[in-house]
Amino acid sequence: MMDERWNEKIPNWTAKRAFLTPDRTAVIFHDEKITFRQLFQEAKKTAEKLFRLGCGSGKKAAVLLKNRPESLYLLAALQLCGTVTVFLNHRLTPGELLFQLKDSGADLLVADETFREKCEAIRTELSALNIVYLRELDGLEGKPDPLKEEFALDDVCSVMYTSGTTGFPKGVLQTYGNHWWSAVGSVINLGLDPEDAWALAVPLFHISGFSIFIRSLIYGIPVVLYEKFEPERINRDLREGKISIISLVPQMLSALIEGLGDGTYHERLRCVLLGGGPAPVRLLQICKEKGIPVYQTYGLTETCSQIVTLAPEDSLEKIGSAGKPLFPNQLRIVSPDDPETDLASKQIGEIAVKGPVVMKGYYRREESNAKSFLPGGWFLTGDLGYVDEEGFLYVVDRRADLIISGGENIYPAEIENVLLSHPSVQEACVVGVDDEKWGQVPFAFYVRKKGCEVGREELEQYCRKHLASYKVPKGWEEVDRLPRNAANKLMRRELKKLAKELR
Amino acid sequence: MMDERWNEKIPNWTAKRAFLTPDRTAVIFHDEKITFRQLFQEAKKTAEKLFRLGCGSGKKAAVLLKNRPESLYLLAALQLCGTVTVFLNHRLTPGELLFQLKDSGADLLVADETFREKCEAIRTELSALNIVYLRELDGLEGKPDPLKEEFALDDVCSVMYTSGTTGFPKGVLQTYGNHWWSAVGSVINLGLDPEDAWALAVPLFHISGFSIFIRSLIYGIPVVLYEKFEPERINRDLREGKISIISLVPQMLSALIEGLGDGTYHERLRCVLLGGGPAPVRLLQICKEKGIPVYQTYGLTETCSQIVTLAPEDSLEKIGSAGKPLFPNQLRIVSPDDPETDLASKQIGEIAVKGPVVMKGYYRREESNAKSFLPGGWFLTGDLGYVDEEGFLYVVDRRADLIISGGENIYPAEIENVLLSHPSVQEACVVGVDDEKWGQVPFAFYVRKKGCEVGREELEQYCRKHLASYKVPKGWEEVDRLPRNAANKLMRRELKKLAKELR
Repeated sequence: MMDERWNEKIPNWTAKRAFLTPDRTAVIFHDEKITFRQLFQEAKKTAEKLFRLGCGSGKKAAVLLKNRPESLYLLAALQLCGTVTVFLNHRLTPGELLFQLKDSGADLLVADETFREKCEAIRTELSALNIVYLRELDGLEGKPDPLKEEFALDDVCSVMYTSGTTGFPKGVLQTYGNHWWSAVGSVINLGLDPEDAWALAVPLFHISGFSIFIRSLIYGIPVVLYEKFEPERINRDLREGKISIISLVPQMLSALIEGLGDGTYHERLRCVLLGGGPAPVRLLQICKEKGIPVYQTYGLTETCSQIVTLAPEDSLEKIGSAGKPLFPNQLRIVSPDDPETDLASKQIGEIAVKGPVVMKGYYRREESNAKSFLPGGWFLTGDLGYVDEEGFLYVVDRRADLIISGGENIYPAEIENVLLSHPSVQEACVVGVDDEKWGQVPFAFYVRKKGCEVGREELEQYCRKHLASYKVPKGWEEVDRLPRNAANKLMRRELKKLAKELR
Repeated sequence: MMDERWNEKIPNWTAKRAFLTPDRTAVIFHDEKITFRQLFQEAKKTAEKLFRLGCGSGKKAAVLLKNRPESLYLLAALQLCGTVTVFLNHRLTPGELLFQLKDSGADLLVADETFREKCEAIRTELSALNIVYLRELDGLEGKPDPLKEEFALDDVCSVMYTSGTTGFPKGVLQTYGNHWWSAVGSVINLGLDPEDAWALAVPLFHISGFSIFIRSLIYGIPVVLYEKFEPERINRDLREGKISIISLVPQMLSALIEGLGDGTYHERLRCVLLGGGPAPVRLLQICKEKGIPVYQTYGLTETCSQIVTLAPEDSLEKIGSAGKPLFPNQLRIVSPDDPETDLASKQIGEIAVKGPVVMKGYYRREESNAKSFLPGGWFLTGDLGYVDEEGFLYVVDRRADLIISGGENIYPAEIENVLLSHPSVQEACVVGVDDEKWGQVPFAFYVRKKGCEVGREELEQYCRKHLASYKVPKGWEEVDRLPRNAANKLMRRELKKLAKELR
């Protein structure tokens, strides 16, 4: 019999893909085309430099990267070293980054030169951390340690931080197996044409971006890489037929459609994968009228991207639905009061998911893990939704308090924590309000401490120092006290209504 | 953290597919179209009748089936019951079937009425076995036990028998995970179009046939089912564009090409997956000239179908090669004398494979398992081959003595055992000789016992009684003694040469 679990190991996917189809295009960046052979060679070269810096199995490297080919080489290189990648959002402040660097126990930080200022601020605070700029790697002499030729499916590949109700970000442990099954679940739903090309215009440090790179390696199709969201360039490429699949959030799709005017896209575009929060029905209608194949999807950092996605035959008929759970995955709607109880169709409850894409857990968060997982491997997402009679999921609301702004998740508790740390603030509550450009933006209510003076300008500046700018409230209201119910529970929905009126 | 291994379970694929895409076509049989909803409903009905017969988890049911829709319902039903399927080759004699029924410990035999004679012969010998004909199921009242909603990847799904050098068939334990990864490895190589349709004209009891049904469930595409190999009907369907992928063995492809004459196939045909032994280069050349996309593949019952297959871009350029190991799998060429030693490219050695498609092991064959598996999960196939500088596999010879006749594997030892059981035979050796129609056929050399008289007619009749007809030697030669080397080892290659001359 087999002496190990049959399913324990698969080949390193960068090496395997370069072996299988070396001459296919792996990355298209502006007018540059990089083959899988080149990608592997560059990744190998980079891996040898990382070995020199002490990378290897059991190590963790944090990365602060732009959407550039060099970043992809680095990500593949870390896997070739057997080193875990800790993804950092480059929009965060040095203080926010510091928390994640300490929490993850990263051994190294590899950063794009663009972020030198933030990195040097981090260096001051965390002198023990080895910080290396991508460009500095060029000068290093490689150390040809043996490359990681196989991935154990249960090993952690990457860590991405997500906040929660406590406001303290938690590291999501994503295994090689999670990423693998995510790619496989997607291909069974969307199909695969060897001529496919998947546009990556979302941030690489989010699961939506990183998962496109992994699919490219597993499927053997190119990533069409964009340094940032450039609607004109992307619209041109979509019109010229350079892209067959593109991952977008509603605000991006909206901007593209606006830029498109009366035009249409090339028939090669076969899927607009739309995630990152609820999409306006009007936008979906326009796309339907224009024949743009939009597939809504529901995914989380904790599920390594898509877990529920519309199928081809339903993409135009089931507008507003995120679809059905992808082949390897399962879905239940449970009572928020008693997660062991399933709700009937059309009843709104908490979305619980199960499957091989569900993360291993939050890193060193025993309490959160205990709360998030039900027996049998079910993960409680905290999001609200219902299924119709046919089993299509409709996401009603992300976790009660979550604000999704231009595809970024904002957890009110994180902003509230910062406000409460200000010496003049007694109480604070942050809610999301609708915004034409960003979908939602945060709006802050605060109560001054007795005898203290503080204005919104000062609080805004204070936030800007401690929070990534997209998290800084775009609206402010001082109140005498926050509305609470009899059980002294904060009535966020009341404040949401109020914020809407004030906006 | 997750309380179970993340990758332990996936949804029952018949139920899941019916849930995801109920209205897609699952089976096309003659002019009948069966949707996934219907397939699931029929399978569920059948499962409830099987429960009545005592099926359930931990049970094993042997099946003797024709390529018909009812057979597919039964196979899906057994999975819904959590019952292991033991596939029987209906070309075997009652004696051969009896061995497999006893060896597997089957609790039940479900058979097509067509095989009543064989089944009644079995009933006489094995009265304890419950034998049910498919048609009898109709009259049974169902028992609505809970259906198996999830498959544990490590659980055994099916058992298929394969002989070996000892001549005694061994049961290959194929897990749900093996089948799953096989379908996934194939889709990453061949791609997937929701409009695909895969023709099943090979026997359902072979892994080549059963794996098409499983892919249909996982991919959500129809099986175009043929009761038997009907070249005219298949050629018509290929010309009319009813088929996009077809699995064939060389003799079938040859017959189709002959029937095609000067015609061509519909452009919808995008892949002829050619397995089951070496293909004549001439045949591959003709296909290339005709623009027929032939993908050679190398697979075994022990690897749940394909493990090495040509990629789209190489199918026309690498004629004669079986390709590279599919994404999740790995390949080595090792020294037949010392399997721990890898050979350089272009050197012929034993083919060793690894990956999640490799069987769990042979059922109750400790010795064979110990011999077949190397540390690290490598499986020794017993076949000979080499890889070129780019890593393409060329299969030189199946296990030294294996005869492949019309896609069926024939193990000489099995025929030799039968011959040696004849009272007048002293020694016997069976080799394969080339045959225009079947690829190869068995040829027997025998030595009479002193003082005994026996002719080839009598031996042929004797074989026909104990062996499936395709195993009965098509050529005979009485010799005074068998050629042996100094170590007394039988020199099979000498006899192969001799048989070729005699033929």
